[in-house]
Amino acid sequence: MTNAHRKFWGWGTEDQTASAEERAFLGAALAKRYATALPTPVPPPKVEDIALRAPRLAVPSNLQRIATTDQRERLIHAYGKSFPDSVRMFQRHVPHPPDVVVYPESEADIVATLDWAGRAGAAVIPFGGGSSVVGGVECDVGDSYKGVITIDLAKLAGVLEIDRESRAARIEAGVFGPALEAQLKPHGLTLRHFPQSFEYSTLGGWIATRSGGHYATLYTHIDDFVQSMRVITPAGPIETRRLPGSGAGPQPERLFLGSEGILGIITEAWMRLQDQPKFRASATARFADFLAGARAVRALGQAGLYPSNCRLIDANEAAGAGAGSAGSLLVLGFEGADHPLDAWMSRALELVRDHGGLIVNDQPKEGASGHRLGAAGAWRNAFLRAPFYREVLVPSGLIADTFETAITWDKFQAFYATVTSRMQEVLARVTGRPGTVTCRFTHVYPDGPAPYFTFQALGRFDALLDQWRTIKEAANDVVIAAGGTSTHHHAVGRDHRSGYARECPPLFADALRAAKSRLDPQGLMNPGVLIDPADRVVGIRGAMRPG
Amino acid sequence: MTNAHRKFWGWGTEDQTASAEERAFLGAALAKRYATALPTPVPPPKVEDIALRAPRLAVPSNLQRIATTDQRERLIHAYGKSFPDSVRMFQRHVPHPPDVVVYPESEADIVATLDWAGRAGAAVIPFGGGSSVVGGVECDVGDSYKGVITIDLAKLAGVLEIDRESRAARIEAGVFGPALEAQLKPHGLTLRHFPQSFEYSTLGGWIATRSGGHYATLYTHIDDFVQSMRVITPAGPIETRRLPGSGAGPQPERLFLGSEGILGIITEAWMRLQDQPKFRASATARFADFLAGARAVRALGQAGLYPSNCRLIDANEAAGAGAGSAGSLLVLGFEGADHPLDAWMSRALELVRDHGGLIVNDQPKEGASGHRLGAAGAWRNAFLRAPFYREVLVPSGLIADTFETAITWDKFQAFYATVTSRMQEVLARVTGRPGTVTCRFTHVYPDGPAPYFTFQALGRFDALLDQWRTIKEAANDVVIAAGGTSTHHHAVGRDHRSGYARECPPLFADALRAAKSRLDPQGLMNPGVLIDPADRVVGIRGAMRPG
Repeated sequence: MTNAHRKFWGWGTEDQTASAEERAFLGAALAKRYATALPTPVPPPKVEDIALRAPRLAVPSNLQRIATTDQRERLIHAYGKSFPDSVRMFQRHVPHPPDVVVYPESEADIVATLDWAGRAGAAVIPFGGGSSVVGGVECDVGDSYKGVITIDLAKLAGVLEIDRESRAARIEAGVFGPALEAQLKPHGLTLRHFPQSFEYSTLGGWIATRSGGHYATLYTHIDDFVQSMRVITPAGPIETRRLPGSGAGPQPERLFLGSEGILGIITEAWMRLQDQPKFRASATARFADFLAGARAVRALGQAGLYPSNCRLIDANEAAGAGAGSAGSLLVLGFEGADHPLDAWMSRALELVRDHGGLIVNDQPKEGASGHRLGAAGAWRNAFLRAPFYREVLVPSGLIADTFETAITWDKFQAFYATVTSRMQEVLARVTGRPGTVTCRFTHVYPDGPAPYFTFQALGRFDALLDQWRTIKEAANDVVIAAGGTSTHHHAVGRDHRSGYARECPPLFADALRAAKSRLDPQGLMNPGVLIDPADRVVGIRGAMRPG
Repeated sequence: MTNAHRKFWGWGTEDQTASAEERAFLGAALAKRYATALPTPVPPPKVEDIALRAPRLAVPSNLQRIATTDQRERLIHAYGKSFPDSVRMFQRHVPHPPDVVVYPESEADIVATLDWAGRAGAAVIPFGGGSSVVGGVECDVGDSYKGVITIDLAKLAGVLEIDRESRAARIEAGVFGPALEAQLKPHGLTLRHFPQSFEYSTLGGWIATRSGGHYATLYTHIDDFVQSMRVITPAGPIETRRLPGSGAGPQPERLFLGSEGILGIITEAWMRLQDQPKFRASATARFADFLAGARAVRALGQAGLYPSNCRLIDANEAAGAGAGSAGSLLVLGFEGADHPLDAWMSRALELVRDHGGLIVNDQPKEGASGHRLGAAGAWRNAFLRAPFYREVLVPSGLIADTFETAITWDKFQAFYATVTSRMQEVLARVTGRPGTVTCRFTHVYPDGPAPYFTFQALGRFDALLDQWRTIKEAANDVVIAAGGTSTHHHAVGRDHRSGYARECPPLFADALRAAKSRLDPQGLMNPGVLIDPADRVVGIRGAMRPG
């Protein structure tokens, strides 16, 4: 992917968009759902539509080779890919672009850039794929910085070493998902970390945000795949020791997993890999209601079977994706490289039946197009296409977003009811008509699920940002008040800070601030996300403040 | 267990010791091994044998209810249960006992004790079961403290809440293994964390030291069983949120897992539990040599089968335990509460055979005594009795200790050869005659094993401490130089600090120091273990200093 073709205002590249067929289908479905003709969509912005403020920083001569102040580059790095990011681009509203974008070609380039930032009093935003949906790469850092430098890791994208025996590889942080898998494939290896953003997100971003991936159980986050890492902090480099396991003090990698760029820039990691799977078993089941499905999923999660896929999709979400409306859908899968998985699937299907599930398809076929067929396939195709639908929805004034959390089983039933009803109430109040709230489980733990909520309502294009902010703040509030986590795998960024501030023990936040003061004494790194540094409060005009 | 019967100089209670039969067997075996009659053993110490310095602290009136300066209590809390601890007790050498031992009955008691320590300028040593084998509870804190207060958590030992649906319980940190399991059993639940120290170690100690437990794969440390925790730091309490999973910032529990008491006192935790297992499959195999066995274990570890037991024991260790001398022994087991494990074991045995293993026993029987029979049973019985053998070995001048590590598979073969030969060389040099070095795997990861080395040599009773220290320092050095971790599950304490200082990234140690400065601003908590606090260097006279 070259940036010449990268959309600065939406997902993917300029040749990728919702098809005419998809647009027609969405338009008709939405007009029917909201019983009104949708307004004429605003066209997507062009680079020349948006006037950016002049760069406030002068690139020093030693960095001119790798730095740019090109308008298109500054636009690409101004926002992530969240709903409000999309809204602001369609509204041509970009008041805080980076002043300079730097593409380091080595760690020495990163050190030189951090040195410059320190001298210049500029904030530094680490940038991987820019797929943040929580304001994680935004440049609105308040008035105490002289400017903002975004460091894009895209040129550090190689697989540097492979250890076949231990199934591990040393990988540069700027590699995108497909390029990573392409480099591993000749060795029969795979990371098998497939977030929805896979095509447009990077290893370093996954680590910095504790990304959630392919596996529904056991390896739910990237965390356990990290064997060791290198981080360039403003105070110097940190390299952890490459080990399969250790009990020597607090695990050092865990300070950086989820640090969201506030401590330094992850430059490479030794990652634990898998053999390419050779055996698969999959099945789809239906449940009369979501809670019955949840009980089955609890049994599956506690059985020690460790399915790679265990996604429970509620009736409304399944119907919305064209996967039929008869109850909740459970998509179940096992995979591995070592042995057939019949015994695993056989016991899993017994548990499904014991909990009232109807097996509708126990070996989905693949169609000629390579797309999976059946209800599970329909849902999966909608899932993969969803990022492109936003550019159809936003310009017509639709509010469409998601939030995800995790909750223990004892609290789940009440949690689900409370969150759903609270969200329906706020959507109706904010937009003046009913919206939709659906739920699925993305990941499952023995002690609870990770519910992922999707909501949609018909707003007004010119009011979208305020409408969304009211709704999002209500979501943050109800998730925390009902016992969940502010984010299961989207990260905190700026948009979850009000929830995170209530979730994070205050003295732990203080300890984290103290660690940051040591590693980033000037407070240069990604101000505004996660926590405020010890000595200054960063204005977050574009998102929620902690309560 | 009441402290009236607790051995202050050895493992367990006074009625527990090596039997006359075991003593005779050990004596004969050792005399044969070293081709010399062993010296007459020094008798174990009595309380009145050891003169302790007078307590340097005056207990304030509000704490007299829960504090003691009883000589026996101070002796019990003077050391852990390491080899040098045993030596010093048999040598009647206890120059640094705690001045006061406090048994809090509530968190308020802990807060009051920390307040007193702060006012008095005293160091605080958190104490669970006192089973540390790395100098983790020692009171030799240098001259910058006015005294030492040991806080023993034994009275905070209840299971406070049970959530059957999520399989979790809120448990006080001072509970010992057997009392914990007894409280869970009526609910059909179990933590299944069975370190060798199980009978005499506590939940809080397991968490603070990242204890290694029952499961050979997947849940190797206590870490992943911790759902949330409460910690009383000198700066105040920290309580993490009870969640099945989260991606919100760096995981707060991970700062305290492995913190070894330097940040505060863990008072309780919500722990993830298991159903009582109903299905088991076990097998024993032999391999012509240890490296062939290691290749089989690598295949097992990478197959996605997740055996609960996967212990490879080298020929010398198997022979020493009376489990026969024909090659290396692999003890393999699966267990679970949900389904029969035939398919799992069947594939595992195929892998064993593919790698040259000979299955000698695929369903060990239990004897009338409840002891398992066969080679695996012989080894297991020796493993359970080993802590009691030290009191036979030490007073006769034997050096007998263990160390454990983890290493990636690509380095394992060279590592094993280097460590073994270096240890044989140092044992011979220090004691003037050959010693023994054996190895087993305690835990196995897809990317490498956790080798556990046991060494023995015939030293001189009056020189044991210096002899041991030279040998231990050589072990620390070779483990780190050859690519391992300074400790896989025994913790760093004082004895592994020279290795940990080389393993831990210096800036991570600085960040940890900064976090400690915030949570423990006066540097009261467990000085001498893990790292020195930012503003003072603690004298570690009784153990190794970082290089």
